[in-house]
Amino acid sequence: MRLLIELPAWAAKYMDHEAVYASEAERMELVIELARENVLRGAGGPFGAAVFESETGRLVSVGVNLVVPFNNSVLHAETVALMLAEQRRASYTLGAPGLPAHELVASCDPCAMCLGAILWSGVRRLVCGATREDAAAAGFEEGPVFPASYEYLADRGVEVVHGVRRAEARAVLELYVSRGGVIYNG
Amino acid sequence: MRLLIELPAWAAKYMDHEAVYASEAERMELVIELARENVLRGAGGPFGAAVFESETGRLVSVGVNLVVPFNNSVLHAETVALMLAEQRRASYTLGAPGLPAHELVASCDPCAMCLGAILWSGVRRLVCGATREDAAAAGFEEGPVFPASYEYLADRGVEVVHGVRRAEARAVLELYVSRGGVIYNG
Repeated sequence: MRLLIELPAWAAKYMDHEAVYASEAERMELVIELARENVLRGAGGPFGAAVFESETGRLVSVGVNLVVPFNNSVLHAETVALMLAEQRRASYTLGAPGLPAHELVASCDPCAMCLGAILWSGVRRLVCGATREDAAAAGFEEGPVFPASYEYLADRGVEVVHGVRRAEARAVLELYVSRGGVIYNG
Repeated sequence: MRLLIELPAWAAKYMDHEAVYASEAERMELVIELARENVLRGAGGPFGAAVFESETGRLVSVGVNLVVPFNNSVLHAETVALMLAEQRRASYTLGAPGLPAHELVASCDPCAMCLGAILWSGVRRLVCGATREDAAAAGFEEGPVFPASYEYLADRGVEVVHGVRRAEARAVLELYVSRGGVIYNG
């Protein structure tokens, strides 16, 4: 029994080059672009994510939501990006000794599953665009995420930033709804 | 960019036949056996899981922890079993209309990531063996799971049973520790 999970070719192209995204805004712009392209191409849910080296801004991996095309409820943009980053680093944790600090940038606040996945991935920082409320307004459920969940991350040294380029990120959720996209966990 | 995730051959064999596991105890015995074999073969962490049709007891998929061999922190036994079950059903939710009710049986209480994944998978029931405290005693962290997390599942119609064959399930965690197994998220 095997699972073959593959980024769409258009998304994989972002990983072909050793691009540097210096600022937080540039990193967020990339993941919002990934989310928007995923919607416009009908490739999956309206979410994008990417892993960067925090200090240099070098792109390590990208992810888009692949739940519907792969019939796989685990394949949120965040889990896809984290799994690809770990594969690239050949390490089950991006926090391994000798590796630079990594961060996950996501076009929306994480659901309960992804919040847990972020903890195990070893990233030291999480940057989010649209909020849980924006996702809910579009019909998406985020699951059992509480203020204490974020305190748990903070206690373990994961810094979290919310609401970066929120309006643009939220606009992608609204675009998806306007096109009649599937709400797979509504 | 692709990810190829494959069950070890010995574990995949459980899915070769249309086995029926009538009772809760039998279902738990299977996942404890999977967890134990995973330890004895040095294949990964001390955790096993399986998806069954609740009423008939027919086995739909199995999963074992594959974090270390695949360098992938998302590949807990539960997520592996859920992804394989959804692939087999060709549906991103096991709760789709026309499908029988499914349940996940896991050798240990779920971590925060897997608790979220369970919600999105569409299973109607979760049966656990060892407890969060047993996992912690072995050095494994379960993440931000709170009583409210389980209330959230219950409110959405997911029934949860804890502590089935707990002593045997806990013994596998102790076996792993006694063999010096890697604690990948300690």
